Amino acid sequence: MSVTRLFTAADLSAGVEVPLDEAQAHYLRHVMRRAEGASMLLFNGRDGEWKATLSLHGKKGASAEITDCTRPQVAEPDVWLCFAPVKRARIDYIAEKATELGVAVLQPVVTQHTMVERVNVERLRAHAVEAAEQTERLSVPDVQAPIDLMHLLATWPAGRHLLMCDETGGGPPIAQALAGLDDAARAAPWAIVIGPEGGFAQAELAALRRMKNVMAVGLGPRILRADTAALAALACWQALVGDWRQPTPRLSSDYRSSRGAV
Amino acid sequence: MSVTRLFTAADLSAGVEVPLDEAQAHYLRHVMRRAEGASMLLFNGRDGEWKATLSLHGKKGASAEITDCTRPQVAEPDVWLCFAPVKRARIDYIAEKATELGVAVLQPVVTQHTMVERVNVERLRAHAVEAAEQTERLSVPDVQAPIDLMHLLATWPAGRHLLMCDETGGGPPIAQALAGLDDAARAAPWAIVIGPEGGFAQAELAALRRMKNVMAVGLGPRILRADTAALAALACWQALVGDWRQPTPRLSSDYRSSRGAV
Repeated sequence: MSVTRLFTAADLSAGVEVPLDEAQAHYLRHVMRRAEGASMLLFNGRDGEWKATLSLHGKKGASAEITDCTRPQVAEPDVWLCFAPVKRARIDYIAEKATELGVAVLQPVVTQHTMVERVNVERLRAHAVEAAEQTERLSVPDVQAPIDLMHLLATWPAGRHLLMCDETGGGPPIAQALAGLDDAARAAPWAIVIGPEGGFAQAELAALRRMKNVMAVGLGPRILRADTAALAALACWQALVGDWRQPTPRLSSDYRSSRGAV
Repeated sequence: MSVTRLFTAADLSAGVEVPLDEAQAHYLRHVMRRAEGASMLLFNGRDGEWKATLSLHGKKGASAEITDCTRPQVAEPDVWLCFAPVKRARIDYIAEKATELGVAVLQPVVTQHTMVERVNVERLRAHAVEAAEQTERLSVPDVQAPIDLMHLLATWPAGRHLLMCDETGGGPPIAQALAGLDDAARAAPWAIVIGPEGGFAQAELAALRRMKNVMAVGLGPRILRADTAALAALACWQALVGDWRQPTPRLSSDYRSSRGAV
């Protein structure tokens, strides 16, 4: 039986009792059928990961008594994903996969050719939380409300680089462009910008190309759907610029089983 | 109104009449509501992409009269994806996304820790065909029947390199490993091998490591689900070894509208 791993907004330190919200209490009591004293892991994106034991209160409530720190918080790459909203299953998939791939901010962007304008930010956030809980990530990306592309560019933070993936092409291959970055560019904050299924409008392309630290790249000879392009670009960015450049910690089967037995 | 693009097994050349199967005829007649003489595009993975016009026969039948070649066939990278089957939505997603990302062969692999043993090969193939039709790819990957990992390794084709992605880690970062390949390795056929959710068994890891042209790599500090790892590794491989290294053809809006108006 694997250990339940939950994201919480509460501060985490040894000896603290953390309240669990209604959905978490329901999940632990009725879905996972955990009893008083069951072990779990908690993380909040700031204090690392902590072992805790379950306390049940009344018929519905639950809290977690924090015991030991299992992993310290680590710095994660500061990379945003700016993407035009797509249909429900595909946008949920973007939230889930981009979380696993280590994105810091999910920023839906409304463009002239965006077909889908309503975005359920709470649902996207729930997908991001679930993906972080299930894949050992120590933080959850911020899911922002949708913003108009031109407004986003007009208020763009100084120093944040843009990696622009557009099916109209013309940019150098992504690996060539990213491998050629200097140290300052590698250390900078980044954003990956993905066009909508219909491509950017001419005025949007022009505005993007006027940005100070923009790099347009190509993702090969086949047309990618917007969700595929987002995840492919993010994987390449992590591999060539982000924290996939560090050797992966070796997870022994001992580590796995010790976690299973927490 | 975009042009319908269909995969067919038939040979394609100017003046030929290609029979459409029942599902294609139904799709054109009743889903897309196309009339006699409507334009479409056909490809078969061998003869490039061709313009054709629709002929309706009786109440249900249809065929396509081939007119002009719109794109020549191009060589595509010879890269297999060997992956342990996962649950339905995720395996469908692997078939769809790997097709967009240009995989040549989808090879489900049964390992000791594989949870899902039944694979609906026909359903996976349908997802691959649909993804190829909708994303301008000129071929459809071969979807193979599931095979036991140890049997696959015992009959491995001489000269085909393996890129092994395993959550137990220990390999160098993927970009470092792929960027360091020599020309012979770059020109070789490849396979990307992804472990099941529970990881490879020790005997499987040992057998993989004994393979002649195997390279174990890491995909960063976060745990990825098997489907995410498959697509991330394939994107990195295409970017660093495959056909994403060529400049992307610039698709002008003229090209797009000319295709829309075929």
